Amino acid sequence: MAIVVVGSVAFDSIETPHGSVDHCLGGAATHFALAASYFTEVRVIAVVGKDFTAKQEAVLTRRGVDTRGIERADGLSFHWKGSYSGSLSEATTLGTDLNVFGTFSPKIPEAYHDSEYLFLANIDPVLQAEVRRQMPGARMVCGDTMNYWIADHRESLAKVLKELDVLLINDGEARMLSGESNLVRAADTIMATGPRSLVIKHGEYGATAFFSERSFAGTAKLHPFRAPALPLAEVVDPTGAGDSFAGGFYGYLASQAEFTPEVFRRAMFYGGVMGSFAVERFGTERLESVSERQIEDRFRRFQEISHLGFARE
Amino acid sequence: MAIVVVGSVAFDSIETPHGSVDHCLGGAATHFALAASYFTEVRVIAVVGKDFTAKQEAVLTRRGVDTRGIERADGLSFHWKGSYSGSLSEATTLGTDLNVFGTFSPKIPEAYHDSEYLFLANIDPVLQAEVRRQMPGARMVCGDTMNYWIADHRESLAKVLKELDVLLINDGEARMLSGESNLVRAADTIMATGPRSLVIKHGEYGATAFFSERSFAGTAKLHPFRAPALPLAEVVDPTGAGDSFAGGFYGYLASQAEFTPEVFRRAMFYGGVMGSFAVERFGTERLESVSERQIEDRFRRFQEISHLGFARE
Repeated sequence: MAIVVVGSVAFDSIETPHGSVDHCLGGAATHFALAASYFTEVRVIAVVGKDFTAKQEAVLTRRGVDTRGIERADGLSFHWKGSYSGSLSEATTLGTDLNVFGTFSPKIPEAYHDSEYLFLANIDPVLQAEVRRQMPGARMVCGDTMNYWIADHRESLAKVLKELDVLLINDGEARMLSGESNLVRAADTIMATGPRSLVIKHGEYGATAFFSERSFAGTAKLHPFRAPALPLAEVVDPTGAGDSFAGGFYGYLASQAEFTPEVFRRAMFYGGVMGSFAVERFGTERLESVSERQIEDRFRRFQEISHLGFARE
Repeated sequence: MAIVVVGSVAFDSIETPHGSVDHCLGGAATHFALAASYFTEVRVIAVVGKDFTAKQEAVLTRRGVDTRGIERADGLSFHWKGSYSGSLSEATTLGTDLNVFGTFSPKIPEAYHDSEYLFLANIDPVLQAEVRRQMPGARMVCGDTMNYWIADHRESLAKVLKELDVLLINDGEARMLSGESNLVRAADTIMATGPRSLVIKHGEYGATAFFSERSFAGTAKLHPFRAPALPLAEVVDPTGAGDSFAGGFYGYLASQAEFTPEVFRRAMFYGGVMGSFAVERFGTERLESVSERQIEDRFRRFQEISHLGFARE
């Protein structure tokens, strides 16, 4: 079933110990859409500037992503500049030019209205709420956010959290949002404010899913579930890893007939799988050309590294 | 089969957000021995002072731990004072009094000589080597170390590493020892210096086992294996969690007839199980009174939080 994703379609300039790229295609909605496209139909809502050409659009459309919701505005596209060092676990932002995103007012194309799944990527929670309001028929809503919105836009963010079936954030964001240093207590505190389920991403250590009594209809509260990340000898560019995780996770969920705990667990693994591909190359390069067989092979690798009885011995 | 462990039997004074304790029984060999005692026979080599009384010794002997190798010396026992704050992920050392450990020269009792398993807990690598030399018949040797020995005693440590079947260290130690920020490359670098297998502990995120071609006789190099840690809402005192992990891990290994990849994986889970018990109370309190049923229950919890098909739904 189709997912509508609203978020940034942008250009990134990135430096890592493996090299650097200038103005490569990036943005949360881009990484999410490419990763999810291997599982289900994806429709994008975003705004770009005149520097976004047919070449960039083709990266999405070649993967079958619907780009009719990408608005063209006068000016330049959103641009992020950052660098990574050491273990590449954290980015240093060198510059953020909002450009056309500064005055973005999202509009949902008529053709998107039958979409049952909505993903609110990391943007201003006021915009997230606006898109949610325009999609009253969505049967499932997932979202992301970041420290900037948690620190300075808490009230608008609180409204969005109430709407979420699943919130996907990282360790630092979970601690900041909850005021709790312990992640289990952080998860309980956050789920009490809205999200039925919570996925906390631990970077190279994987991710944990937390469930509330409201996670699954008619099911008591479940224990958390831990998905590993693939130990990688070489991380070329971690930009977009979290969005690719979200794309694999939500794309798989949307492709399934039923939303069960087992399906949720598998979605966590597919999230890790797509995140692990994303970091192998700069920008979107690797996500543009994964094969279904590679995805299934890597899914089995995730089982192999985490399941007692799954060894190829 | 019996494990000989050499390491500190000591007193700890600890402050955490949950309270504080003064001079409670601690030390790497103590935590290791208690955790391993649920799986196999354990024999301790250590030195204590006059402040170590029958009461402390009974904590070990009640669990069947052989204390004949604990030497009594004039003076006070090793004493560590530390505090934890925030997410309790790292200790701040407030004081270390080596006391009788400063002049320790380990001697192996005759009765220990038939032990097939040796664990070199975190002490001066010169002492680790001395014990290894006195136990030529040990068929398996595992060990631990820490930043202090890595930084300033690299040459003596290098000799010990060559003797190890398994080295158990944490992320920071692995990076420091290898000079590599990427953990997969760190693991390869470290295993090239000696250890056949390497377990890197990630604290609240679990642990990863890395294998070399020499890990298992007649087996090609295996992919890494990731064991989760239990997400805990309350960590009372993390002191000794790593040693308890080592005890559960090695105790289980020593209890098995064969050393296979599957047995190694299960050992990683039992390590996590014993570590998760250790942190529930101050000092050794929780490890003194776990039941076998609680251990098996928690082992299943570890499967439940990490295995796709293991949900109790």
